[in-house]
Amino acid sequence: MSSSFGTLFRISTFGESHCAGVGVVVDGVPSRLKLEASDIQVQLDRRRPGQSQLATERNEADQVEILSGVENGLTLGSPIALLVRNKDQRPQDYGSMSQIPRPSHADLTYRQKYGIHASSGGGRSSARETIGRVAAGAIAEKFLALEYGIDIVAWVSSVGTVDAGAIDFSAVTRQQVDASEVRCPDQAAAALMSKQILEARQDKDSIGGVLTCVCRNLPAGLGEPAFDRLEARLAQAMLSIPATKGFEIGSGFVGATMRGSLHNDPYGFENGRLTTLTNHSGGVQGGISNGENVYFRIAFKPPATIGLAQQTVDYQGNKVTLEARGRHDPCVVPRAVPIVESMAALVIADLALIQKMRQPL
Amino acid sequence: MSSSFGTLFRISTFGESHCAGVGVVVDGVPSRLKLEASDIQVQLDRRRPGQSQLATERNEADQVEILSGVENGLTLGSPIALLVRNKDQRPQDYGSMSQIPRPSHADLTYRQKYGIHASSGGGRSSARETIGRVAAGAIAEKFLALEYGIDIVAWVSSVGTVDAGAIDFSAVTRQQVDASEVRCPDQAAAALMSKQILEARQDKDSIGGVLTCVCRNLPAGLGEPAFDRLEARLAQAMLSIPATKGFEIGSGFVGATMRGSLHNDPYGFENGRLTTLTNHSGGVQGGISNGENVYFRIAFKPPATIGLAQQTVDYQGNKVTLEARGRHDPCVVPRAVPIVESMAALVIADLALIQKMRQPL
Amino acid sequence: MSSSFGTLFRISTFGESHCAGVGVVVDGVPSRLKLEASDIQVQLDRRRPGQSQLATERNEADQVEILSGVENGLTLGSPIALLVRNKDQRPQDYGSMSQIPRPSHADLTYRQKYGIHASSGGGRSSARETIGRVAAGAIAEKFLALEYGIDIVAWVSSVGTVDAGAIDFSAVTRQQVDASEVRCPDQAAAALMSKQILEARQDKDSIGGVLTCVCRNLPAGLGEPAFDRLEARLAQAMLSIPATKGFEIGSGFVGATMRGSLHNDPYGFENGRLTTLTNHSGGVQGGISNGENVYFRIAFKPPATIGLAQQTVDYQGNKVTLEARGRHDPCVVPRAVPIVESMAALVIADLALIQKMRQPL
Amino acid sequence: MSSSFGTLFRISTFGESHCAGVGVVVDGVPSRLKLEASDIQVQLDRRRPGQSQLATERNEADQVEILSGVENGLTLGSPIALLVRNKDQRPQDYGSMSQIPRPSHADLTYRQKYGIHASSGGGRSSARETIGRVAAGAIAEKFLALEYGIDIVAWVSSVGTVDAGAIDFSAVTRQQVDASEVRCPDQAAAALMSKQILEARQDKDSIGGVLTCVCRNLPAGLGEPAFDRLEARLAQAMLSIPATKGFEIGSGFVGATMRGSLHNDPYGFENGRLTTLTNHSGGVQGGISNGENVYFRIAFKPPATIGLAQQTVDYQGNKVTLEARGRHDPCVVPRAVPIVESMAALVIADLALIQKMRQPL
Repeated sequence: MSSSFGTLFRISTFGESHCAGVGVVVDGVPSRLKLEASDIQVQLDRRRPGQSQLATERNEADQVEILSGVENGLTLGSPIALLVRNKDQRPQDYGSMSQIPRPSHADLTYRQKYGIHASSGGGRSSARETIGRVAAGAIAEKFLALEYGIDIVAWVSSVGTVDAGAIDFSAVTRQQVDASEVRCPDQAAAALMSKQILEARQDKDSIGGVLTCVCRNLPAGLGEPAFDRLEARLAQAMLSIPATKGFEIGSGFVGATMRGSLHNDPYGFENGRLTTLTNHSGGVQGGISNGENVYFRIAFKPPATIGLAQQTVDYQGNKVTLEARGRHDPCVVPRAVPIVESMAALVIADLALIQKMRQPL
Repeated sequence: MSSSFGTLFRISTFGESHCAGVGVVVDGVPSRLKLEASDIQVQLDRRRPGQSQLATERNEADQVEILSGVENGLTLGSPIALLVRNKDQRPQDYGSMSQIPRPSHADLTYRQKYGIHASSGGGRSSARETIGRVAAGAIAEKFLALEYGIDIVAWVSSVGTVDAGAIDFSAVTRQQVDASEVRCPDQAAAALMSKQILEARQDKDSIGGVLTCVCRNLPAGLGEPAFDRLEARLAQAMLSIPATKGFEIGSGFVGATMRGSLHNDPYGFENGRLTTLTNHSGGVQGGISNGENVYFRIAFKPPATIGLAQQTVDYQGNKVTLEARGRHDPCVVPRAVPIVESMAALVIADLALIQKMRQPL
Repeated sequence: MSSSFGTLFRISTFGESHCAGVGVVVDGVPSRLKLEASDIQVQLDRRRPGQSQLATERNEADQVEILSGVENGLTLGSPIALLVRNKDQRPQDYGSMSQIPRPSHADLTYRQKYGIHASSGGGRSSARETIGRVAAGAIAEKFLALEYGIDIVAWVSSVGTVDAGAIDFSAVTRQQVDASEVRCPDQAAAALMSKQILEARQDKDSIGGVLTCVCRNLPAGLGEPAFDRLEARLAQAMLSIPATKGFEIGSGFVGATMRGSLHNDPYGFENGRLTTLTNHSGGVQGGISNGENVYFRIAFKPPATIGLAQQTVDYQGNKVTLEARGRHDPCVVPRAVPIVESMAALVIADLALIQKMRQPL
Repeated sequence: MSSSFGTLFRISTFGESHCAGVGVVVDGVPSRLKLEASDIQVQLDRRRPGQSQLATERNEADQVEILSGVENGLTLGSPIALLVRNKDQRPQDYGSMSQIPRPSHADLTYRQKYGIHASSGGGRSSARETIGRVAAGAIAEKFLALEYGIDIVAWVSSVGTVDAGAIDFSAVTRQQVDASEVRCPDQAAAALMSKQILEARQDKDSIGGVLTCVCRNLPAGLGEPAFDRLEARLAQAMLSIPATKGFEIGSGFVGATMRGSLHNDPYGFENGRLTTLTNHSGGVQGGISNGENVYFRIAFKPPATIGLAQQTVDYQGNKVTLEARGRHDPCVVPRAVPIVESMAALVIADLALIQKMRQPL
């Protein structure tokens, strides 16, 4: 178990689906930052289940309590512990599955690794584990917004075979993203995406999708070569989210098909600073932010838990047919939006604090 | 600068293009491992420049010296320091470029971050930085091979728009990979890939490509949720390699278009253990290895240094035309093969040592 | 703020005197360990204020709640979060002190470091911060006892100028320690120590003391040279406890006056293994445990908060007379016993897990 | 093996007595720092063997080579690798001892831990391991001197039963320290100390001693509660040095005998800032520097290697008489002076860089 992330802005998450609660301890938050529970709740509300017909029916208010580190609305510089109690638990949904490892779920690997498995649901591999990340990420976002004017927006750029059209990375807002339940700012595509998700649900099946995220107004200089390059830390952060299978930054896999003369981002000069005229690099060169928009995409597989009958075997190797019960998302990408934003904020906040060591006291 | 990687099997790399040497300190190597310089040299030889017409003309023997940690051919359990002296340096190649940040190179961002820039070449963003990784990775590989029978094979799966055909992940060998200069085991594709690279070189241009890597015989149970999941650590490791733009494991971005009923890997029972009948997961579930083949792909952009004239600006913002001199690779993927293998080995060795804590003493 | 400690057995503590609660997240606890809240409560009860006339009058039940990581009385291998709510808060006690930094307290340095200071009491420098350590340490102790038969006993070996007589390191028990309120197993000395503490209290003053701790049945091989030697990690752990000023292991400062011929611990052979005939080393050689008793001493200064009038200055530099109010311990060493034991257990548990990497899987 | 130390200013040492060389990689050194090999050599010269009749006869020039990270006399911000070749090796001195674990040496524990032991000398437990620390510490010292005006001076304050008289912590210089071979600035005591050491040597015995170290001009605010308090990190650093048995800061163990009214350091106001009128705290309150002198003492045991006959047993448990050969120091404290200064500098440099995160960019 490695449930800590970050060097100076450092989180330690805890909790599984069916224990008393889930949460996080956030260490390294700068002192004197204005912070209230509502700053955190807004992102938890975007993440919580039961928001729409596209998501799981599990219904959790996911109210956050600040346990420490904040007094009179200001951070103290000490660790901030955040707790969300689990409420809507139905362990009985899982009893019948205790003898069958669900295909492409973590039941078997948790057993192989730990010799034990939470009796119900996905334990730490469940989506509830991400509550701590989102709560911590909201603090990181507030810090980045106030100190640098950084803002971070993620959205659904594809569901199944439906892709969104061109999105203006410099202008897209969370309001536009949240205008549709599926969280795609291209309304025409959003309608098709919702249709694909509802069809998958109707078929007791699930479906995958892709998120795109843009981080704006990063100062130049963030990222620590060789191993904590900005894109390396983002890649780790994103691939640590349940159900992710891929990450690409800037031109990504398409860039691998290109020639350098086309792919290179030549410099221009604007507003007193060097800018790039194109941005195939995705805002990062040599692992360090260059002041341009940082953007990247994350692939999410279809959720493993489906109601359709699956031919598989139980732990003893006997052939069985599994029809999973329990409440689950037919597609995770709409609810993954605040998770991706939060992980991006955590990476950037950490690298921003580290870069401060390069300034005179 | 964060030049350390790993928790228990931990490396610290050093060196840039034009200093006395490059190398690595490897801490946490199990004691009593048989180790000689030749075990390391073999992978350095696959990485070194000047191997073929597809690579840079810089010619370095890259002979490794073991400075510490090994006695009478056995590791002592103490840090193993490895040194490769720089030989073929031509700082004069870079003089004219000191006033112009090369597009899509790290010249500008290193200046922004550190307020100084190595006078010549890419400093730590240069490919020479990877020598320490490859040297350390060779030790990790030897440990994994001897203790678990793990083997790791990477190859070039695309260059530009040329893709290799189907490769048998369970059978492909390094010998097959090295049969062509471009390091693609599909000989027909290899010929086309070489042609694309030579054309790019002839045009004073460069070209991108994709590597695929498979890791076989991993025991189940490796990977530390939540943040050090196997795929998260692999993603960080791969995106920390210069020129990388994307990573995907198992079904990757294609998996995001699929439905769960098709994507799920049902279990079967074979040779006394549960296996998966398909492997869209890429050998990892819930961030933990399940005993199947772990495979992933990495996108490399075209090298930024090209001889073609580029319209850009100098550090003062004046418009200039840049025609880069210096020796450089028209395509990095053939030489990236041992780098990817090494980074994979370092991740797996570290997670394997960590997993040992879960056993009784 | 660095509120995390440990590499594989890793804790992250949180909370200050007057927030909602204090606690800890413990990551890396082996799975399938039998664990109930009562295992933890027993050490919290030994630490809690209000136990006797020798301690502060602040009265806190300090009931622990296990929030995560345990199911049906067994650990899951996932992070265990523990919470103790703050109850008996009297922020009004501190209002008058907000303009005066208490001498030898952390009021000024917290302001200098963070630019803000918890309005009341010592914030993170308060003894309440140690609750998380004790709770986590109780888990570490249970693991060490069950897996290795290790037991750890600390006691008060001096208060002011009163020293305990010789204690048998191989035999002393917690029951003997707890037989006196002052927690000194030498009953004659204990009476004199209590007298010194009560006199200090009567004088509105405070007094310092020394703890001794012995750790028995450690396997040989624990400790990671060069920087995580067993004694180095113990020293860090002990000096991280509030009010500590010194640490010595084995012969300690007395050993520095000796000659090698007297100080060396020659080997004998007993019960099939090499033992040392004396133990000036304190159970550690070259930073690694050798299987003998590990023992060490920790110096605690007199508590800084005293009722006696002190001539000092306020934050503006104006001369003032301070008579501190608030409830405080006249001597910390009796309540420090479980804190020292817990920190020792955390160090040893971490090093024990690390040493497992040196075994074949 | 944990041969890394520090978070942002981070070192990784390597090398043992009889391999090709010893050294260190220093990561996180601020860029644009003026640095030449001579800055490092001066402290290595103070540490090297063969300086005087008080030390071992092993004669090593210990010339340092800067392998990377520096160009044209300026640091690049990249890792700085430093190498010192081993020259004067006499493995034949150790052949006869391979069957007998030397009492109070690390021979046995290294075997127990690693299952193997460097054939000759102390391996990583040898004093040669400290070369990397001293080389890295010299860089840290230069950074601290240039950026903050910090200076660090250590000296021998006792040898055996001879104590130095009062030393003025605010004024003592390295020149005064180096005025005597034994490195005690009290010349009368120095003569007695030398006598004790020479007598021990004549008797084929060894003797212990104590170092005192003062760090001046630290800015207020350094130290990271709870676990990386300044004194906790210093304690770890000092107890990681071979042969150390104790550490105390400020009033130390004597402070434990005092009452608070005497021990507390009241505030005064001088030169526009709050100062303390006494300094029992040792310049640290709540784990954070307060701007006063930081001072501490370290106990060193007598070296374990002595020529006197010792009754002990071999690895098989047979009784033997051991008369150690090989060259060794009769007392380590004179040569330990630069080691202690270096470890102090490494701790402070790391905490200074971390504290920078609390400033606006």
